[in-house]
Amino acid sequence: MSMSMSMSSLQHHPDGRLRHLLTLQGMSRSELETLLSRAQALRPAALDGREALGSLQGRTVVNLFFEPSTRTRSSFQLAARRLGAEVLNFDVAHSSSRKGESLLDTYRNLEAMGADLFIVRVAESGALDQLARAARPQVALVNAGDGRAAHPTQGLLDMLTIRQHKGADFGGLKFLLVGDILHSRVARSDLHALRALGAGEIRVCAPPALLPQGHTLDGCHVHARFDEALEGVDVVMMLRLQRERMEEGLVSSLEDYHRDYGLNAQRLARAAPGAIVTHPGPINRGVEITNEVADGPASVILEQVSNGVAVRMAVLEHVLGAGPRAR
Amino acid sequence: MSMSMSMSSLQHHPDGRLRHLLTLQGMSRSELETLLSRAQALRPAALDGREALGSLQGRTVVNLFFEPSTRTRSSFQLAARRLGAEVLNFDVAHSSSRKGESLLDTYRNLEAMGADLFIVRVAESGALDQLARAARPQVALVNAGDGRAAHPTQGLLDMLTIRQHKGADFGGLKFLLVGDILHSRVARSDLHALRALGAGEIRVCAPPALLPQGHTLDGCHVHARFDEALEGVDVVMMLRLQRERMEEGLVSSLEDYHRDYGLNAQRLARAAPGAIVTHPGPINRGVEITNEVADGPASVILEQVSNGVAVRMAVLEHVLGAGPRAR
Amino acid sequence: MSMSMSMSSLQHHPDGRLRHLLTLQGMSRSELETLLSRAQALRPAALDGREALGSLQGRTVVNLFFEPSTRTRSSFQLAARRLGAEVLNFDVAHSSSRKGESLLDTYRNLEAMGADLFIVRVAESGALDQLARAARPQVALVNAGDGRAAHPTQGLLDMLTIRQHKGADFGGLKFLLVGDILHSRVARSDLHALRALGAGEIRVCAPPALLPQGHTLDGCHVHARFDEALEGVDVVMMLRLQRERMEEGLVSSLEDYHRDYGLNAQRLARAAPGAIVTHPGPINRGVEITNEVADGPASVILEQVSNGVAVRMAVLEHVLGAGPRAR
Repeated sequence: MSMSMSMSSLQHHPDGRLRHLLTLQGMSRSELETLLSRAQALRPAALDGREALGSLQGRTVVNLFFEPSTRTRSSFQLAARRLGAEVLNFDVAHSSSRKGESLLDTYRNLEAMGADLFIVRVAESGALDQLARAARPQVALVNAGDGRAAHPTQGLLDMLTIRQHKGADFGGLKFLLVGDILHSRVARSDLHALRALGAGEIRVCAPPALLPQGHTLDGCHVHARFDEALEGVDVVMMLRLQRERMEEGLVSSLEDYHRDYGLNAQRLARAAPGAIVTHPGPINRGVEITNEVADGPASVILEQVSNGVAVRMAVLEHVLGAGPRAR
Repeated sequence: MSMSMSMSSLQHHPDGRLRHLLTLQGMSRSELETLLSRAQALRPAALDGREALGSLQGRTVVNLFFEPSTRTRSSFQLAARRLGAEVLNFDVAHSSSRKGESLLDTYRNLEAMGADLFIVRVAESGALDQLARAARPQVALVNAGDGRAAHPTQGLLDMLTIRQHKGADFGGLKFLLVGDILHSRVARSDLHALRALGAGEIRVCAPPALLPQGHTLDGCHVHARFDEALEGVDVVMMLRLQRERMEEGLVSSLEDYHRDYGLNAQRLARAAPGAIVTHPGPINRGVEITNEVADGPASVILEQVSNGVAVRMAVLEHVLGAGPRAR
Repeated sequence: MSMSMSMSSLQHHPDGRLRHLLTLQGMSRSELETLLSRAQALRPAALDGREALGSLQGRTVVNLFFEPSTRTRSSFQLAARRLGAEVLNFDVAHSSSRKGESLLDTYRNLEAMGADLFIVRVAESGALDQLARAARPQVALVNAGDGRAAHPTQGLLDMLTIRQHKGADFGGLKFLLVGDILHSRVARSDLHALRALGAGEIRVCAPPALLPQGHTLDGCHVHARFDEALEGVDVVMMLRLQRERMEEGLVSSLEDYHRDYGLNAQRLARAAPGAIVTHPGPINRGVEITNEVADGPASVILEQVSNGVAVRMAVLEHVLGAGPRAR
């Protein structure tokens, strides 16, 4: 917790401008809305390279991934390229880490090659914090997922997708997060964003063994039964169930999990009319969600993916001071 | 077979224009010749980036490879870059497939990021068919090899190479395909192209266990003895012997295979004067072909590689409606 | 040795111009200084993509790495991109080499796709020699490390870094190389460069089992004791200790190695005032060097990394005849 707090303070310049994007925790509503509005404006350029901009021309962006994630990396790569940046993919599963070099030394090395911005995914919560303290003044960091702590661009793209369907005023809406909240960086970033944007009601539903302790769920309504939790909600935010949870004994079986926490069309009918369903992907079809729901009219899952490129363009521009609203 | 037929119908727009390139089966002589002529015109730009064109500027091409093949991927990458496209390499051996995501979900995800064209290699024959049915209207697919069904750009580059040496009229020529025809997508695409282009005579020669059943060899002359098959042919098209054929017991030993089906200079002398030898690579030197032949004057193997870039440029342009002859 | 001599003669055009960069052995002081001066001039463009040049626009550079090395590959990739070249990364750990294709066939294949320049890393000393003999006339090769034979761009970047701190006249300076000289291609390239540039005194210090035989150390002062070797030197060039040396029994333990050959601040005090410390990276902190020295004021390790991009830009330009001083 204190680590996240320090990330929040690390990520701003003394004058309040955003320097890195490490976490959504501590970001103001106005900061989030600036990014979301810019992302909305960037949608055409995000989805059609012929609309591409040159605001990052000559800048070098490094995808520094200590955990494999080709989807998130591809989304960042496209975002950077559509702004004209040069992209270097540094997949540490295939690099000198195997030679025993520390994360910090790998980072410093690439920084010394003249990189302007690092997009970092790493298994250890808090590792980003260490890099942010070491970063040269002109270099920016964007968190692409660190341990279970934060995945801020996923949080932003979720918010952008919700806004497109439900409007920018979250005060009158009911949100439900379902699944492995304990281990989910997506859930943490969503919760930070929902609170900052003034979400009307936030419910969570998860097996008891997958509910976090501490302040993570402050202000949330915890529901043990999924059917009950779904009643009248406007936005159902499903989380991915990692198969290792079963091996760890935190979930008895995929069948049991699906029976108790799987979203099917019958259950979804309990939500408010026009409710939407989000999922960060990749989907475990038949586990946390049925095909009928994943591919049905309430699903906004592929829109989330499209919005991901736009959100990442907005973030890259912003932390490099290249966007139209860079303060 | 019916699957390939459906691929053939899937790959055209209702008005007859080529939408995807999934297979050469069912393509007309005129369609093939349009692509081959354009590829011939693109040769200078294919081999010298300083001649590069900008016809795919702003377009995003995804190399979606579910089987590793750095050579084919590199050839497509260069082709796309030399037309000005942005290229995203998505090597699924290192991606979320490991997290259990289906091929179709991986595809849809990348499509939602704004990709215009997918170049797909996949182990299962028919998987391309599934993607083509799911593709958004503006998105094109190019088959970079699916199972044993088809490898259409290899077929095209083989035809282009033959045309350069033997002229565009295949009616007076004798062709011989040698090797593991049963498992070869290259052989299938070559056979479709040769028939469409009006090849004079098509012979095949393979160990009985590596000869396909059904209609694959319709109209071909099957020869049991290699020496006999070679008599007077103008084009000898060698196939790669996968080492797993030995493990599967389909080939007794590499030595036996080489003795019976290996091309050496002495054997090649039985072919027509000026005969050429093709091979899709990578070569098993000393198995299906000797060094003397692979590196000798009849070999056009490296020309095939060069032509591969040109053919792929022509195909990418064509299916994206960006070429000069896009109908 | 004779292999290196032949590399030296292979790498020049008959008229004396540099065609490939395979080794620093046999290069003249004037050739080295031309490259170093150009690298110095390219520093701003090396470290800021907004200063990028277009001298390699339309050229295709292949990173052909038969050994993994993401750092060196990234440095070359940035160098090539900042000159406007197209870069193809061909990491053979993930390619057809697994299908049994020879290094030479892989090379020829990529050459046939229209590549202009190959940056090659390979485990076997002398493999570059084989490729250089096979290369088409217009194609250039740059050695990115071959076995224990040579790593010429590392040698050049070391020299550039030293020059920046100590001036271009090496005649009055004392140099010390420390560590696993026997297996080090970096040491060999450094020694060739130091001799060509007229280094005043060259000392080496290593465990007896890690000292090379033959002519490698011609003209060097071999010291058994590190403390003694350090007395009054101006440049301390540390080498990386590969952990496999312990497994091979060439080093008894990392602790013993550190005690006898590890550079700490106390030891460094024996060097001349203002002495600098180089290391090719990745660093084994606590083995060949302490944190205090690696991160201290004498360390120029990150400057070496920055200079690496500049040196590689100069080399790429030069062998492609695209630089301002290309003769």
